[in-house]
Amino acid sequence: MEKFTRNQRVAAITKVLIENPNKIINLNHFTEMFNAAKSTISEDLVVVKDTLNKLSMGRIETISGAAGGVKYVCGLSYEKSKEFAEKLCIILKNRERIIPGNFLYVTDIMFNPQIIHTAAIILASAFNDKCVDYVVTVETKGIPLAYQVAKMLGVQLVVVRRETKLTEGSTLSINFVSGSSGRIQNMSLSKKAMKKGSKCVFIDDFMKAGGTAMGIVDLLKEFESELLGIGVLIDNVETPKKLIHDYVSIVDFEGSDEKGEALLFPSKMFK
Amino acid sequence: MEKFTRNQRVAAITKVLIENPNKIINLNHFTEMFNAAKSTISEDLVVVKDTLNKLSMGRIETISGAAGGVKYVCGLSYEKSKEFAEKLCIILKNRERIIPGNFLYVTDIMFNPQIIHTAAIILASAFNDKCVDYVVTVETKGIPLAYQVAKMLGVQLVVVRRETKLTEGSTLSINFVSGSSGRIQNMSLSKKAMKKGSKCVFIDDFMKAGGTAMGIVDLLKEFESELLGIGVLIDNVETPKKLIHDYVSIVDFEGSDEKGEALLFPSKMFK
Repeated sequence: MEKFTRNQRVAAITKVLIENPNKIINLNHFTEMFNAAKSTISEDLVVVKDTLNKLSMGRIETISGAAGGVKYVCGLSYEKSKEFAEKLCIILKNRERIIPGNFLYVTDIMFNPQIIHTAAIILASAFNDKCVDYVVTVETKGIPLAYQVAKMLGVQLVVVRRETKLTEGSTLSINFVSGSSGRIQNMSLSKKAMKKGSKCVFIDDFMKAGGTAMGIVDLLKEFESELLGIGVLIDNVETPKKLIHDYVSIVDFEGSDEKGEALLFPSKMFK
Repeated sequence: MEKFTRNQRVAAITKVLIENPNKIINLNHFTEMFNAAKSTISEDLVVVKDTLNKLSMGRIETISGAAGGVKYVCGLSYEKSKEFAEKLCIILKNRERIIPGNFLYVTDIMFNPQIIHTAAIILASAFNDKCVDYVVTVETKGIPLAYQVAKMLGVQLVVVRRETKLTEGSTLSINFVSGSSGRIQNMSLSKKAMKKGSKCVFIDDFMKAGGTAMGIVDLLKEFESELLGIGVLIDNVETPKKLIHDYVSIVDFEGSDEKGEALLFPSKMFK
């Protein structure tokens, strides 16, 4: 079997941990991978741990016991998170983003992997210590963000559909009132999608009055499950608030000024 | 400024590269991060490069010139890819996945970040050398896979909608004939979503007769853009083929046997 130097082991261990956020990896995985002693791997892990700490790039946690091991927990420094929120505001202020009906075009942002990766780290950090079972979203625009948060939390993603699909098997449906438009809408979820008694986080692109989030609470009740928290990329703070009060957001949208320019600011998380 | 050991630099460089697949990172980024000479960083990079090679975990490429630097290109060995396809077949064969109408329930698979991460590496590997501008998918189930492939290729994701949305601005719509059901369907895409003259890869969960893929070809023509390739997780090889012949897939679905058990095999990529 090939031998690996400490440098090489450190590189490989970093890759494995980073690619499996919040998943406990048993030390045997690494001792077998490198044909090395547990004490050697433990020393390698100290290097990785110290480096992430020093650079505020998340952290490595050690879990003791038979099912124990190490896991990578994502994180970003307050400064870098704030810098990200500020940059996002500049991107979103582009006048061409205002579309008829006073909407803000954000689709390209929600489907930009680099932006979504960082946004997901910031949102996931709010729920890292909460024993989440599922990340839930409603189709369509929030799916990449919710997927990336689920990946960071090491859990399954659940996507609530706007209408029932043949390929979902038996579904549970509820009606809810959109908080901003007052219209009645439907959401449905396959009965196979979630175990009873689960703890969930709801992730979405935009928060207006919170009607969708209220709908999610009702839908989760049908699954005897609980909503632990909510995270959104953009909070429309202009909408008279709000059915929901407890959530995290990255950017505040305050509508447009008299020149038709969008008013965007880093959220209260950064004040 | 803090000093970093070679081990620590190797850990941090690995993390930065892995988190930014297919993105060229200038060496100055690392010399500033560690307050180290370029020659030192080059030596660190050799360690990372050798390790990924040795373990078949993708590769590091060096790009020379003023806009040059290094980038991580994802990859997985043939053996590990095949092992993944075989495991996926076992998971999919579970009898409870057959739902009325002879559909296979795959939603949980498409929304499982660990499975999608590996599937995306396998599919992205087919397009790593093709100068892709966008990864395109049609809502909803294929979005996480398409997002993850886009991330691996370092490009933007584009999600084609089933119906026109207010928040998308001006859209281009086309009708297409579903190859398996023969029904006429609609797909639309915001005019802001894609630059003219782009090269695209289409990623989806399931391939049946290929009607959706043909629709994508037509839609891309409206954007004066080109389809370079197609990748799907599951290929329904039972459907009389096919409007589309050139695509990569991971698992073949051959319908069910007389006992009602789903017939699933690793795709021809692994034969």
